[in-house]
Amino acid sequence: MSMQPSDTPGLDELTREECLRLAASHSVGRLAVADRGRPPLVVPINYVLDVDAVVFRSDPGMKVHLARQYPVSFQVDFIDPSHRGGWSVLISGLAVEVEPSEVAHLDLEPWVGGAKAHWMRLLASEVSGRRIRLADAPRDPRGYL
Amino acid sequence: MSMQPSDTPGLDELTREECLRLAASHSVGRLAVADRGRPPLVVPINYVLDVDAVVFRSDPGMKVHLARQYPVSFQVDFIDPSHRGGWSVLISGLAVEVEPSEVAHLDLEPWVGGAKAHWMRLLASEVSGRRIRLADAPRDPRGYL
Repeated sequence: MSMQPSDTPGLDELTREECLRLAASHSVGRLAVADRGRPPLVVPINYVLDVDAVVFRSDPGMKVHLARQYPVSFQVDFIDPSHRGGWSVLISGLAVEVEPSEVAHLDLEPWVGGAKAHWMRLLASEVSGRRIRLADAPRDPRGYL
Repeated sequence: MSMQPSDTPGLDELTREECLRLAASHSVGRLAVADRGRPPLVVPINYVLDVDAVVFRSDPGMKVHLARQYPVSFQVDFIDPSHRGGWSVLISGLAVEVEPSEVAHLDLEPWVGGAKAHWMRLLASEVSGRRIRLADAPRDPRGYL
């Protein structure tokens, strides 16, 4: 078992390796940015995990926020309400624009047509995650994957 | 049709009424908080929508952030990767602690056992949302609900 018990009953902290493996298994997450004093802006994005970087396309509106170079967070989770369990991964760092040729090898196509011309790469400086389980549920995580 | 076209092709802005109706139809979302200069912290929460307020329980760790009285955001979405469509709703405001008796009428039970003793109520001051669709997909939103 590579999970480590956290301080909160029912939550197990995930290792960085587990977080990246889980993030790589999904294709839709959320990008959260926050201007100072403003509530965070949180929007769904489709993405590809490129080793330990989150690669996605940004529309001009989001890019305005990203260009301010505040740290941003990417979050992805899998929640199973019927079993009241799942996992959540958070990857934080700076998002930088990259040339399309730098990410051409990745299989990433935006859902939304039009103006998503800016490729962004979120360089993971912090990676954390946790598995959620009922306090009295078995610890076998397979059911949550 | 109550949807309004947004500036971005493939996205339709949702009305406040639609946002609250969609949020009320789900039970798991994400809470995003940001300390100044730090990347946003984003964690899944289970919740109940009480008219236009998001009611949830907070563990002591999250409460430390909430107690700083920065504006926070609650986000919930439904994404269907196979159809490349869905919706996302964002509710922002201040989260305040409430007495358990004030929310006892709500059917909200935390997933995680233990220390989730603090009931919080996020008073919606800003509500926004959008429906995501392929640029060439039919506009009928029913398939995304």
